[in-house]
This record gives sequence, structure tokens and C-alpha cells, in this order.
Amino acid sequence: MDRRLENLHRALHPRAVAVVGARRLDDYMWLRNLSTFAGPVYSVNIDEKEIPGIEALGFQNYKRLTDIPGPVDFAVVAVPRRATPLVLQDAIAKGVAGVALFTAGFAETGEAEGRQLQETLAAMARDAGIALIGPNCMGLYHPKVGLRNHVEQPAGEAGNVGFLSQSGTHAINFSLYGASQGLKCSKVISYGNGVVLDSPDYLEYLLQDDETTVIGMYIEGVRDGRRFFEVAKRIPPRKPLLIWRGGQTEAGRRATASHTASLAQSNEVWGALLRQTGAIGVDGLEEMVDTIKALQFLKPTPGTRLGLVTMTGGPSVVITDTFAREGLEIPPLSEASYARFRTFFNIIGGSYQNPIDMGMNWAGENFEEILRVLRDDPHVDAVVVDLPLTFLLRRMALRPDFKARLFSCLTEMRQHDDKPLLAVVGFSPFEKEEVDFRRELLALGVPAFHNFARAARAFRHVSAYARFRARLAQEGG
Amino acid sequence: MDRRLENLHRALHPRAVAVVGARRLDDYMWLRNLSTFAGPVYSVNIDEKEIPGIEALGFQNYKRLTDIPGPVDFAVVAVPRRATPLVLQDAIAKGVAGVALFTAGFAETGEAEGRQLQETLAAMARDAGIALIGPNCMGLYHPKVGLRNHVEQPAGEAGNVGFLSQSGTHAINFSLYGASQGLKCSKVISYGNGVVLDSPDYLEYLLQDDETTVIGMYIEGVRDGRRFFEVAKRIPPRKPLLIWRGGQTEAGRRATASHTASLAQSNEVWGALLRQTGAIGVDGLEEMVDTIKALQFLKPTPGTRLGLVTMTGGPSVVITDTFAREGLEIPPLSEASYARFRTFFNIIGGSYQNPIDMGMNWAGENFEEILRVLRDDPHVDAVVVDLPLTFLLRRMALRPDFKARLFSCLTEMRQHDDKPLLAVVGFSPFEKEEVDFRRELLALGVPAFHNFARAARAFRHVSAYARFRARLAQEGG
Repeated sequence: MDRRLENLHRALHPRAVAVVGARRLDDYMWLRNLSTFAGPVYSVNIDEKEIPGIEALGFQNYKRLTDIPGPVDFAVVAVPRRATPLVLQDAIAKGVAGVALFTAGFAETGEAEGRQLQETLAAMARDAGIALIGPNCMGLYHPKVGLRNHVEQPAGEAGNVGFLSQSGTHAINFSLYGASQGLKCSKVISYGNGVVLDSPDYLEYLLQDDETTVIGMYIEGVRDGRRFFEVAKRIPPRKPLLIWRGGQTEAGRRATASHTASLAQSNEVWGALLRQTGAIGVDGLEEMVDTIKALQFLKPTPGTRLGLVTMTGGPSVVITDTFAREGLEIPPLSEASYARFRTFFNIIGGSYQNPIDMGMNWAGENFEEILRVLRDDPHVDAVVVDLPLTFLLRRMALRPDFKARLFSCLTEMRQHDDKPLLAVVGFSPFEKEEVDFRRELLALGVPAFHNFARAARAFRHVSAYARFRARLAQEGG
Repeated sequence: MDRRLENLHRALHPRAVAVVGARRLDDYMWLRNLSTFAGPVYSVNIDEKEIPGIEALGFQNYKRLTDIPGPVDFAVVAVPRRATPLVLQDAIAKGVAGVALFTAGFAETGEAEGRQLQETLAAMARDAGIALIGPNCMGLYHPKVGLRNHVEQPAGEAGNVGFLSQSGTHAINFSLYGASQGLKCSKVISYGNGVVLDSPDYLEYLLQDDETTVIGMYIEGVRDGRRFFEVAKRIPPRKPLLIWRGGQTEAGRRATASHTASLAQSNEVWGALLRQTGAIGVDGLEEMVDTIKALQFLKPTPGTRLGLVTMTGGPSVVITDTFAREGLEIPPLSEASYARFRTFFNIIGGSYQNPIDMGMNWAGENFEEILRVLRDDPHVDAVVVDLPLTFLLRRMALRPDFKARLFSCLTEMRQHDDKPLLAVVGFSPFEKEEVDFRRELLALGVPAFHNFARAARAFRHVSAYARFRARLAQEGG
């Protein structure tokens, strides 16, 4: 591992941390973010007006990084841009392994002063081999050791999802929204302008990190396309790599220039990169989280043939259109399945051709039996069940045992792990109850999605990635 | 108005209603649905085992429709399919104006018996001129008079949104989800197989209904294409018509056959119909509700040039990509606007080219001033503000007056009604708080959408419809 990556590793596992430039205006955000870190957290601030507030929070303040007595492996720097070279100089002198530069106002402003300052910082960091993260970034989130960049992030538990982002907001939203959807992060790195350590470095780091088994990234542009490609193509054979790209339109590319001064590549270049590397292209935070959720909770399934189950007829049409438009199949079932259905399924108000419109077959043991037929059918690779609360809340209110039976039936299906089971819980007026219900299903091991389109897209990606891995295995064998 | 439509009108404004076939198995669903109807609700049931339960709920039960002493204008029929001709015969004899046939098991089963029964009912209804709604449907929801087809639907208040659906579930979901998003329905009609009264009849009725100012529909197939087109083309010049189509894929068309026995038309035919009529094609319940919400809360705006405002940089890129992909423009602002921005906008960590990445400009009066600049800019037709709770909840906790200032600023913007203002509140882990916050914004008159894509799609439709109306006005003038 090269020296800068060793330093990044040390910064992610620090003995002590310093916050340079904590201030009342943002309620001492960075000091509060680090409240979950077990080791010492020092403040560095020269502003006499800020020091009393910092000390009142219980932090020891120093005037300079070099004044701190013990070792400091990681520093978050949030000082005005003109002060950043001095702080970086002190960090290098102190032997700090990594600096996350929250400060903005560099090349992304389009101004000469900002560009010049960025070049100065980059040259200093390169000479010293220090891991400069940013500038214009939220830096590191490493839940296991309690390094955070937002006060709402969970800490203390190890995770397996790595995430890289040129946007601090997307990094934080990923960590928070992901946590709400059952994902546990290993390391999340927001790297903004990425002037010293850039996307290929972070990808390399997460590739080698055994705790990380899946990598997502939000990227606005690549400085060294060849190097990016060389790293990116080594990842999907070992772990899924999901790429969400900002700047897909001309207007969006103008926005990336103002945001991280990135030079965006064309859609054609990115399309070719995805095809050649086996990376999964996703569009937006929701698709990113949904797909990783599906990768986490579903067995890898190269198949594309779905068994679709809804409570009523209208949704059976719409779920079918939605999955078919994602290039997935909704095939006729086997003759054996139809023979089984004929023995018990009431087709008045329902149908079982696939999609399965349950109609009145909800009652009795039919729900269980419908899922068993699909589980056993050799024409079906995965099963999707629509669980709309508009319908279910009333059932649950009327029949006290309804929910327990539904859950035990889903659990039975889930334990036959050979066939993935997805649920959809969405677009009812009971939006709050949906949040809880999706969580309950996830606790059973059944990933629940917000609507048909999100479930279909996530499954398509999981299935495509499984085919990619299967092809590799075949070529290797 | 032809006789069947007169009868439909009378069924929608009944003196009394009868439920034929109420039963314990579904907890007397139809009787309970009608608890909000002010006039008499009678039960008709011949099953001795059901009668005590019905009477215990306080309903008078009769053995036959013709036994009811007073007039009955509307009947919901939920008896086994073989009993339906007898019940329809009684309804005709009784002078009932309209019958909603909840019973399924007709042509959509693909069986000879079901097809035959459907033909029998259709012939009887046509001869008598009775408004037969369905079969295989949820019938009527007319909130103003308390006719409902789901116990959660609001009642007692008049509304302006008409909705037609071949799916009962979509009709109910529309009414419930729509209500949660601030829509008030005038009449919602679920008509299932649509064998006597069909989509052109219902469209004609809602076109003539002055209470209905916008019409949405979910449709799986059209029996008489010429007639459908003739009615449909008369609507958009007077009120927006939104069409959501089930059966857009081959697999989806197989599902529509099992659902309502509809013969689906090709995507090309529907594409041509939308172009030639000026109807708005939407895809899914969410897009239907979002678009009607936008039509309700935004001034008609033929323009396509957006001013986009986000709190931070990453979302500024993504919102721009999202709106640009919908064919909307994010233009540079006027020189006058840039001159104003230069006087106060801190570009360190922010940018104002459009999109506006506010960065630290949230503080002080800058938020207000940013919106005022966009309001005054002649290059901008509408403004979209991203209000992510991950960011806002902390601000609101830290600064007690923050929310009041934000709301007064949005209200100020909103009162300058010449330029539509849209908000986006979404994809944070605070999904429940988002539900409340969107409602609060709606109460200010600011429609809030769940994500960028949903806002962009809704605005595109509003803008396209305003251009359609403007062209018509020009041709007329």
C-alpha cells in the first residue's frame, strides 16, 4: 500500500483527533459529531471569542496543532480558506496522518485565489505524503471507531458497506437513509474536490479493506480516467461496485463545475466504463440504497423470471408492466403449478396465470399455499409480494392473528433461501405506518421497497451482477 | 344527456341506497362504507345466517329489492355471480337508477359461464336503460353526499377532482393517497369490465359535471376507440385529462385480460391519442397524484425555465440533472440578478449561477433575498426549493425562530403568485417527519414533492398543459 493510503488507514483508525476551527455559528458541529469517538478529541482554535464556548463543552483547546501534547492521527479542518496552508503546515509538522478539509472556496469558485490556494495545499500534501481529504468535503465516517461527520449517524457497530462521495450531503444522506433501510456502513468518505487523494485512491483502499464487501460511490468527474478504470475493473470480480454519477446533462455538468470543479466525462465514456468493468450504474440515492439493500438481503440470483403476487387486480397489471419494462420476465408457470392452483384457487375476483391476483384467496391457508407453489415452480427465479397497507391495516384490525400468520408465512418462504423474496409496501396514505412496516419486514429478512419501480430496478441490478459473476466464474473455470 | 347518464347522475345523488349481499366475512364492508350517507341505507339479503349480524348493525334487511317500501336510486350488489341476473331484474323492477356490481367472475375469468353471464346482464341493462356500473368493480365514491367505497375515505366535503378507473384498488388508492396529498375528489368511479357504461360514458359525465375541474383515469383497454377519442378530445380544452394506462407491455396486457378482459391498444395508438387530444399521459399513481397536485396548487405556466435552489452542492447537481432530463431548462440568470447576488452572496461553499447552492447563505436574510432575486428574474418561469429534513431538523432545533422565518419567506414568495414555487421534501431518514412537513407546506399553498424526479415530472406536465391551452387560445383568437 502506498504511503498516502497507509496514512488514510491511520487517519481512519486514529489514536486521537483534532478539530481545527470549531465555532458557535454551527453549534460546534464538528466537536459534536466526534462525541462518539472513544479516544481524545482536541480543539484547535486561535479565536479568543470561540474558546470559552469550546471549553464549556468540555474540550481542551490549543492554539496550534503542534501545541497538542500527545499524538494526533486525524484532523478535521474548518478554518477560513486563507488560513488552510498554515494549518496544513502544522499538521504535517505534528505528524498527523490525515486531514479532512471541510473548508470550501477553492477551485470550485472559479476564482484565481481559490485555484491558487488549492494548488498550494496539494503541493504541500504531496510532498509530505499526508492524506489530504478534500478540500470542500465532509471527510470521514467510520462507525466502528465512532468517527462521524453528522450527529445523527449511528456509531459503535462495524458494517460492511463502503461509500465514497464527492458530495458531503450525499455521503451523509447515504449513511442516514441507508441506516434507516437496514444498511450498516464500514467506511464512508466524502472527498469533495479530491485534489490529492482522488477516487482511484479511495476505491483502492476500499477494495483492499476486508470489512467492506460492497462499494457505492457518487462521482462528478474523474481526473485520471485510465487509473480510475484500472482500479474500477478489479472491484466487481470481488465485490459489487455501484456508481451514481452527477453531471449527466449539460446543465448538470455546469453545476458540477461550481460544486467540485470536476471535469465531467461524457455519458458514452461512462456507459463504456460500466460495461467493461461490471460496475452497476445507479441513478440517485434511492436507487443506490435500494440496490445495496437488495444485494444484502437477497441471495445472488442470475435469473430474471419473476413470480408476482398482488392482493387485487389493478396492482397485478401495474406490477407486471413495471417489472417487464425493466427487462424482467413474468413467465407462465409450470403445468404442475397450474394443476396445484386448480385444486384450491378461487378465480372469481382473482387469477393465477402469473401475475397472481389473489382476490379473495387471501382468506384461509391460500396465501401460504400460493407462495409455496411459486417457491416450487421451476419457471420462477424470484418472488415479489405486494403488501399494501390500505388493504392490510383493515385486515390486521379485523383479525388479531392475521399479522402473525402473514409473518410466519413470509418467514417460511424466506427460510427456503433458494428463491429470493421481495416485498413492496408503498403509496398508501398510511405513509408513516409504511415506514414501520417496511422495518418489520426487514427484521424478518425480507427487503421491502417503496414501490414497484424501486423493487424492479433493485432486482434487475442484483440479477445482472449475479450474471456478471457467473460469467467470470465460467471463464475462470 | 342520454338516459343512462341521467340514471348515473341519479345514482350519484340517491334518495336511498341498498346493499345487496352484505356479509360477515368482509365485516359488512359495503354497509360500513355507506355509514356516511345521510339518507336511508337498506340491506337486501336472503341468507338467514347473515341477517342477524346485519340487523345488529342497525340496518333494516329485506329479502328482495322490490320489498323495500321507499324509492332506491342506487344499489351496490355483492352476491354470487349466478344470482346477479335475478338481482338486476329486481333492481330494474324497483326502478333503481344505477347498480354497482361488485361481483366478479365474468368475462375476465376466460370461462364460458362468466362470459355468458356478462352478456345476459349487459343485455338486460341495455334494454332497461339502467346505469350498470361494472361488473367486477368498486362502484361509486361521491364524497359530498357520503357515498363511499372504502371506510377510510373522507366524506361530507365537495371536491373538484374526478377520477375514473377500471381497477377498484387504484380508484380507492387514488382517493386515499390523493386526500393525504391535499386533493379533494368530486366523483370517483370504479367501473371494472365496463360492459354497459364504459369509459366514454363516464368521461362524458365528468366533462359535463361542473363540480369536476380536472379528470384522471386508469384504463386497461377501450372497446370503441372512435367514441373514446371523440369524447377525450373535447376534454383538455376545458379541463385537464390525465390518462394512466395499464397493459403497456406484453406481459402487462396478459394481466389486463385476466383482470378486466380488456383488449389493450398498442403503445403507438395511445401515444397518438395523447398527442391529438392534449391529454396528459402519466405512469402510475404517484405521478397521477403529483401532477394533479401541481395543477391544483400552481398557476398555469407555459414556461420551462427553472430556478433551482438547494442547501448544498451535491443536491444542486442532482436536481439539475433531474430537471434537465425532463426536458426543462436551467438557464443562466439575468445580469441584474448576478449583480444583486454579488452584493451579498458568499460563494465560499456556495454558488449562484443557477442552480443556486446556498452553502452558508442560509444564515441571516440571505435565504429570503435569494428567493426574491429568482422571483424577479425574467429568465426564470418557476422556482424549486429543496428542503431536506436532514438539514432542516437540526436548524429548527438550534434556532427557535428558524421555521417561522422559513415559512414566512415561502409565504411571501407564494403571494407573488406570478411565479410558481415548488418544494421538495424527501429521501431523508426522517420519513415520518417528512410526511408532516409536506403537509405543513401544502397548508401554506406550496406543493411539496417526495423527490426531485417527482417534482420535475409534475412540473413538466403542468407546463405542457399550459402550452396546449395557450396554443388553443391563440388559434381561437
